[in-house]
Amino acid sequence: MSQKLMIIDCDCGIDDAQAIMLALSSSNVRILAITCCFGNTDVDNVCQNVLRVLSVCQRTQIPVFRGANICLMGTEKQFKDHFGTDGLGDVLPDRDSYNWQTQIQKEHAVNSLIRLVNEHPGQISLVALGPLTNLALAVKLDPSLPQKLKDLYIMGGNMEGKGNMMPCAEFNFYMDPESAYIVLEEYVCPTHIATWEFTCRNKLSWEFFNEMISQDTAAARFMKMITSKCWAFSREPGLNTRDIVFGTGFVPYDSFAVAACVDGSVITESIECGVRVEIQGELGRGMMALDLTGKLKSHRVFVMKTCNLTKFSSMLMASVQQP
Amino acid sequence: MSQKLMIIDCDCGIDDAQAIMLALSSSNVRILAITCCFGNTDVDNVCQNVLRVLSVCQRTQIPVFRGANICLMGTEKQFKDHFGTDGLGDVLPDRDSYNWQTQIQKEHAVNSLIRLVNEHPGQISLVALGPLTNLALAVKLDPSLPQKLKDLYIMGGNMEGKGNMMPCAEFNFYMDPESAYIVLEEYVCPTHIATWEFTCRNKLSWEFFNEMISQDTAAARFMKMITSKCWAFSREPGLNTRDIVFGTGFVPYDSFAVAACVDGSVITESIECGVRVEIQGELGRGMMALDLTGKLKSHRVFVMKTCNLTKFSSMLMASVQQP
Amino acid sequence: MSQKLMIIDCDCGIDDAQAIMLALSSSNVRILAITCCFGNTDVDNVCQNVLRVLSVCQRTQIPVFRGANICLMGTEKQFKDHFGTDGLGDVLPDRDSYNWQTQIQKEHAVNSLIRLVNEHPGQISLVALGPLTNLALAVKLDPSLPQKLKDLYIMGGNMEGKGNMMPCAEFNFYMDPESAYIVLEEYVCPTHIATWEFTCRNKLSWEFFNEMISQDTAAARFMKMITSKCWAFSREPGLNTRDIVFGTGFVPYDSFAVAACVDGSVITESIECGVRVEIQGELGRGMMALDLTGKLKSHRVFVMKTCNLTKFSSMLMASVQQP
Amino acid sequence: MSQKLMIIDCDCGIDDAQAIMLALSSSNVRILAITCCFGNTDVDNVCQNVLRVLSVCQRTQIPVFRGANICLMGTEKQFKDHFGTDGLGDVLPDRDSYNWQTQIQKEHAVNSLIRLVNEHPGQISLVALGPLTNLALAVKLDPSLPQKLKDLYIMGGNMEGKGNMMPCAEFNFYMDPESAYIVLEEYVCPTHIATWEFTCRNKLSWEFFNEMISQDTAAARFMKMITSKCWAFSREPGLNTRDIVFGTGFVPYDSFAVAACVDGSVITESIECGVRVEIQGELGRGMMALDLTGKLKSHRVFVMKTCNLTKFSSMLMASVQQP
Repeated sequence: MSQKLMIIDCDCGIDDAQAIMLALSSSNVRILAITCCFGNTDVDNVCQNVLRVLSVCQRTQIPVFRGANICLMGTEKQFKDHFGTDGLGDVLPDRDSYNWQTQIQKEHAVNSLIRLVNEHPGQISLVALGPLTNLALAVKLDPSLPQKLKDLYIMGGNMEGKGNMMPCAEFNFYMDPESAYIVLEEYVCPTHIATWEFTCRNKLSWEFFNEMISQDTAAARFMKMITSKCWAFSREPGLNTRDIVFGTGFVPYDSFAVAACVDGSVITESIECGVRVEIQGELGRGMMALDLTGKLKSHRVFVMKTCNLTKFSSMLMASVQQP
Repeated sequence: MSQKLMIIDCDCGIDDAQAIMLALSSSNVRILAITCCFGNTDVDNVCQNVLRVLSVCQRTQIPVFRGANICLMGTEKQFKDHFGTDGLGDVLPDRDSYNWQTQIQKEHAVNSLIRLVNEHPGQISLVALGPLTNLALAVKLDPSLPQKLKDLYIMGGNMEGKGNMMPCAEFNFYMDPESAYIVLEEYVCPTHIATWEFTCRNKLSWEFFNEMISQDTAAARFMKMITSKCWAFSREPGLNTRDIVFGTGFVPYDSFAVAACVDGSVITESIECGVRVEIQGELGRGMMALDLTGKLKSHRVFVMKTCNLTKFSSMLMASVQQP
Repeated sequence: MSQKLMIIDCDCGIDDAQAIMLALSSSNVRILAITCCFGNTDVDNVCQNVLRVLSVCQRTQIPVFRGANICLMGTEKQFKDHFGTDGLGDVLPDRDSYNWQTQIQKEHAVNSLIRLVNEHPGQISLVALGPLTNLALAVKLDPSLPQKLKDLYIMGGNMEGKGNMMPCAEFNFYMDPESAYIVLEEYVCPTHIATWEFTCRNKLSWEFFNEMISQDTAAARFMKMITSKCWAFSREPGLNTRDIVFGTGFVPYDSFAVAACVDGSVITESIECGVRVEIQGELGRGMMALDLTGKLKSHRVFVMKTCNLTKFSSMLMASVQQP
Repeated sequence: MSQKLMIIDCDCGIDDAQAIMLALSSSNVRILAITCCFGNTDVDNVCQNVLRVLSVCQRTQIPVFRGANICLMGTEKQFKDHFGTDGLGDVLPDRDSYNWQTQIQKEHAVNSLIRLVNEHPGQISLVALGPLTNLALAVKLDPSLPQKLKDLYIMGGNMEGKGNMMPCAEFNFYMDPESAYIVLEEYVCPTHIATWEFTCRNKLSWEFFNEMISQDTAAARFMKMITSKCWAFSREPGLNTRDIVFGTGFVPYDSFAVAACVDGSVITESIECGVRVEIQGELGRGMMALDLTGKLKSHRVFVMKTCNLTKFSSMLMASVQQP
């Protein structure tokens, strides 16, 4: 069977690292490129983080592209230190001296997206794990891009009016609401969305997490190290919005989107409906709304609803068991 | 035991009629006034509808006051014909000739609210079943009003980012988002909210509804008549947003708020949190957001979560069994 | 000749005091009431300030009504200390001990407006010199109010996209944009507006101001006192937006609106057009826009354009020469 | 003396055609590229129109690049038929059969902008005559672009709260308010803006226009042809917003920006201040505000105020006298 062609666009924090490992460990997937965007940290850190993950997994031949370092309507750098200032838990000792710049491709992430999709029309699955700035810019430069994609998997947005950044808004969409709006309006390819509530409702146990990072592999040791001092991986309940709303547990956000792309049967039920991002208002800005009655638009997406956690857990475990 | 003092502010459609009957049938409640607001129909029809319900239940001594016929920021009349053009199913033969004007109090609903609350400080439960325009105007004329209320019960708003008017907005709040905003910001008395999703998730069966309107009383016959030709009371599934989102069933929206006021034990669980209404945006406008992590404000309300349906059904049944 | 009936709604700072004096000195005007609103200071100070002006001018028989202390969508007190904290230059020694409460009418300003206009339909000229909160609430309680007014004079808004509070917004409108919106949409009586740019373009000389406050009358001495320490009356150029945009000079803002009401010939040219207030946006909020081509609406107002400064100066001088 | 290097970004309608001719006739200017954007017509027509102007002026060696066909936040094609459906007065007989596609460069306008500016750092004057979509996308792909420009000349925006598309908004900015916002926030190079009001206040006479298009040259004959049936070139007063607000006359909008770039002495006075574009609101959206008191930001631009009309007329006349 031929391999799936995948491009991952990410803002490589810890959960993106995990999601990339999951993709790397999938034998039926060929990753054409990883494109970088600001988000969990600034885009330079994201580039370095991606290269480090590829290095740990001995897959440095995958080209990495630098993209947007700022949201569409913003003029100042912004990121959230959910996973430490550097996105990977602030534990890597040689961060400043690490030679990453020379390993980044010269081409801009947005142009690489356009080029690759046009080189493989109808074949590429795009997986977006961070703010959607690169995807928004790409469709503005090439409006035909979406129809040349095989499909699109997004971790982001919300489906019950709940969020982790604002009462109604999720991090990835809130960091660049205009780009999220553009992508959901213009990417008319089959689109699958893992919302914040979906990922939280499918949380795994901390016991599973402990077992996962205790494997005797380079990948597991790396994951153990970068989560060692990060408050988001504390088992203390009540530290963050997720715990307050959904109870404590381990939520590997981005991995849901990658897993759904790698093996569609991981998602056992989806809601097919229109979606739109609100860009205005103190509370509404960045919120994704489900248009269940078809009032707003005809383009429909698949909002993930239920997940086969057994299958998903196995994929996560396998992702750190690669040599 | 002394009676509870209640004022009902409503936009008397069919579900308001039912809710008023429920209040009238409660022996521990004394209704000081019913104030009228546009909503399900224009305010003149609302006035007439309230008087007709009181007439059917032989309680015409309760004073009825005319209030706002338009939302705060609007200049044109607006209402929704969910329950027919006249709010009561368009079946009353003598609507145009019915002499209602002389039975309406001269005082404006807003001034009556202010006067009554100041005459009975700390004693009045206010139950709001329509757009919140009258309540918003009242607090603007008398900012001390909220702290003189015993408590406030509202049917309106949403708690899961779902709505019946717009993908994220419920009818009562969407009809006057600015007033809903003002009321939720400024009514600092204990506040209990029956949201659209809460009422829909606690739907009753159409069998129960049939049994209720088949009682041999004037109230039941009236209810049977006004629901006889109204599409909202059709048992055909899939006709409205409610059915699509929550499945088919009988949802007596406003009665939940009155029942909670009459007997607090009907509500078995509530979420205590801050809430705020978004007023901007195509999708956000009119949406209520729950501030579960206390980011926005300190004033907290009780958002109803679960309901004792046995007790609630009994109250509904009793409400049409009054002589 | 019969007298004009006038009601003044104000947020009595120094320029309102001056404008009230101008009205008091006009023999063809009978002031039925002065209604108070927050703005240059809180509404309690405004009440006291109005009573003091009436006392200086020996006209304490004019009833004074207390109105809104907060804008429509706001929950916290707000005012601008353009004319000192107390609105009258912070020089009155007995401010705290002054017995003003007993001299304020019991009736709310909004209800007094409704009552008086209904008592004198078609006869009253309403002059609004502060935020338009009272007027907005009045029309919401009595939608027929505007058509029962003879006419309306407003100091507020802008006509060239320039403002003193924000780059595009003027103080009175910016302090309550929703109320300004409501008033301009719903007050369909003949309406005359003295915008910020209009008043600034018709500035008088500081020499004239000096001569005015040097008259040997109680009114002039009062005006000299309250302007004595107020930075807004400094002759130093460049201290405020007005000087930067229009050059230095004495601008008796509110007096233009009163003068236009007292003697229409003071205004030598007006633009008749639709106007609307923007309520959204960082820059747009509170801005008045002129609809010169009739795209938006049919209700048209008179936006003052040129002024007979000789006549206006005479009226100002006469206002402080009353015994 | 060395030539100025210029790139023109335009939405080639009739006034852009004129402006391009003016640039072509300036001996001290070398045009490196003309980049195309939707606006007066769709981007395909714009491409053809630019090529036709270059052909008339025998300058087809200048490379032409295709850019955005839609605004940043929009999903549907939009343009204004101010100058006919095709932007050049709907008089060209061979529009559909004209072979223009092969003459357009393969590179996207946005990438060509980035490439050329990086090849000539500090040397290029960029003149923007349409919606600013291409410029906004360029700075998003290369944030360092603005500091590598020599300067930027823009026709667009407004300075007195007056507009031709909306009461407060000008066409070019209103067609893509988000892009206008981005450009004014992020292009920190010396920036000169010819607003709508500035161009209208510097209108020329229809006699001058008649003389100009009556010259015996290919350029003049072309201009005469494309303006022959266009209502915007009608001498009948009162047909458009411009006439209503500023009086009748000939206003060669885009040519002011090009003229100012070619010879700075054409502009005799400018206002140096911060500017910002409002993106929200029915009235505010697309409006440019002048920040005269420095409240909002530090980056300042030059808003053109007065013009040497003698010099400007001579340049216009010379532009059609080229062989």
